[in-house]
Amino acid sequence: MTEMTETSPGWLTPDELEATRARMPILYIDAVPVRVDEAGVVTRVGLLLRIGSGGKVSRALVSGRVLHHERVRDALMRHLEKDLGPVALPQVPASPQPFTIAEYFPTQGVTPYHDPRQHAVSLAYVVPVAGDCRPRQDALDLVWFTPQEAASPLVQQEMTGGQGVLLKQALAHVGCLP
Amino acid sequence: MTEMTETSPGWLTPDELEATRARMPILYIDAVPVRVDEAGVVTRVGLLLRIGSGGKVSRALVSGRVLHHERVRDALMRHLEKDLGPVALPQVPASPQPFTIAEYFPTQGVTPYHDPRQHAVSLAYVVPVAGDCRPRQDALDLVWFTPQEAASPLVQQEMTGGQGVLLKQALAHVGCLP
Amino acid sequence: MTEMTETSPGWLTPDELEATRARMPILYIDAVPVRVDEAGVVTRVGLLLRIGSGGKVSRALVSGRVLHHERVRDALMRHLEKDLGPVALPQVPASPQPFTIAEYFPTQGVTPYHDPRQHAVSLAYVVPVAGDCRPRQDALDLVWFTPQEAASPLVQQEMTGGQGVLLKQALAHVGCLP
Amino acid sequence: MTEMTETSPGWLTPDELEATRARMPILYIDAVPVRVDEAGVVTRVGLLLRIGSGGKVSRALVSGRVLHHERVRDALMRHLEKDLGPVALPQVPASPQPFTIAEYFPTQGVTPYHDPRQHAVSLAYVVPVAGDCRPRQDALDLVWFTPQEAASPLVQQEMTGGQGVLLKQALAHVGCLP
Repeated sequence: MTEMTETSPGWLTPDELEATRARMPILYIDAVPVRVDEAGVVTRVGLLLRIGSGGKVSRALVSGRVLHHERVRDALMRHLEKDLGPVALPQVPASPQPFTIAEYFPTQGVTPYHDPRQHAVSLAYVVPVAGDCRPRQDALDLVWFTPQEAASPLVQQEMTGGQGVLLKQALAHVGCLP
Repeated sequence: MTEMTETSPGWLTPDELEATRARMPILYIDAVPVRVDEAGVVTRVGLLLRIGSGGKVSRALVSGRVLHHERVRDALMRHLEKDLGPVALPQVPASPQPFTIAEYFPTQGVTPYHDPRQHAVSLAYVVPVAGDCRPRQDALDLVWFTPQEAASPLVQQEMTGGQGVLLKQALAHVGCLP
Repeated sequence: MTEMTETSPGWLTPDELEATRARMPILYIDAVPVRVDEAGVVTRVGLLLRIGSGGKVSRALVSGRVLHHERVRDALMRHLEKDLGPVALPQVPASPQPFTIAEYFPTQGVTPYHDPRQHAVSLAYVVPVAGDCRPRQDALDLVWFTPQEAASPLVQQEMTGGQGVLLKQALAHVGCLP
Repeated sequence: MTEMTETSPGWLTPDELEATRARMPILYIDAVPVRVDEAGVVTRVGLLLRIGSGGKVSRALVSGRVLHHERVRDALMRHLEKDLGPVALPQVPASPQPFTIAEYFPTQGVTPYHDPRQHAVSLAYVVPVAGDCRPRQDALDLVWFTPQEAASPLVQQEMTGGQGVLLKQALAHVGCLP
């Protein structure tokens, strides 16, 4: 795309770029860790248990930013290792095609996803995990749910920002939505 | 995701956010405009003809940034209208799942896609276009190619930044790669 | 695949073929008719209203067999025209990739889908419909539901054979699962 | 779908079923075995080397029928084990969504795929393989190619029935089409 710098309306000049950089959508990944059986059927879904700033318990997907000059699949690996530990053995998909995108808006109701701090657009993947998971940092625990449990109102209401919807979309994609 | 602001390692504090915002991947869309027959078979692929800063002719997909607080499908509509005119009648896909993502790196060779100015991650869609196309702004023309022609070396070498590869991926996705 | 007739274990001899033909999976398509807004967002889902042999009311997707020497997209067109009438103007997807496959087993519980008469494997597509729909033949009516209504227990319990699950998978795929 | 047996035009009566069973599309799977690196990038594609009935050498994907009352993922496992041996450790995808479908017609030119013996519709998947591959039965060998080699004219011309096109579609799907 070298040649179209100054002419293409789809590409900004350095000045325009600088001016708009302060407010732009931020690229994220969401990963749904799963256990699969020998034939690839999802048997369990892993959710992180977190304690929020107000002491409120919530369950979350593996989620985080893509950094400058980082490939999406490397961002997936980094966040999975950060949240599940170094021996989780995640199988990042061969295809870069996400099963969906989740558009987290700072305003409620534009999409099913919401993030009060920013406009984040997340590429969502289902990632089979074969090894031992040892949650680190702020995550208290990783709990494995059956697809039935993961889609239940009990678990859904413990998820925030629309991640419960995203989880159900993942279950639908792997053919395990109850 | 309200409750996990301060604790989640996947989310940055306001200070960290400010510091990294200057260098982060920029979210783009790429659209491949196509003509389809009654049964949905792609019969033609539309490519923009542009004259670059050095006078070099190139062919390009419809491409551009997603703005802050703009849905991806609204960005698709905006760039399609900008490049194809107001009566092109694009049929933006019902599903937000892109057929692939194109990671344009400022460094050559990390991925098949390259953009010397920035790290852009583009969500790529095939978009059937039913109406009249009237290229505007800097685009000289829109030319409709058969899938066979679009994948030919002649057309491929007129595309830059890896968009030729992305075009072939689109053709593969719709079952029209020769 | 001409050369591997007699040698490939994946291909049967004419005799074996004859013997197994009596019992093999039957290829189907399932189409979820939708109304979309200008930006491609699904606003309504169309369900057929049928009266079953026992007088029981049920709601159904557009569904049917793929015939010998018929392309999958032609089967989609044929069943859509048969069920929605000749001026429904369905937009069959450019890509042949189904959003999922539904494996209807004659035995309950193998998959979420069930058909007591046969083993059918169905390729499932979401199909935007732009024109007037006039249900024909045995379908009494076509009713347009919001995504919210379509996923509700009320509508779900009127669908049989697992088509309610398939409908929710379609809604998840287009980002409209409540 | 119990209630709609006699009424739905999409479903045949037992007599019609019997009459048409002799000539109907046959359900297949095609699997593209791949080696991936730690981040999921495809580094090699595995192709079977076969000697056809006329002594002609050809390269082929793992391919074969889905049997009555067999799940698609079990058919994938069976054909992969049959062609790659019992310790290949294939990772059948969690999602049943194929990356494309290949419609092999007995008549040339209807689609890019051709099978002179029958109308077969194949669900195509990319399958990472982690273990040792020991081709069995009629396959002489399994050769691992780089994506570059797999898409080259040399390899493409050794593939028959349109499997070369299908292989390129698989490469496009995983972002490795040269």
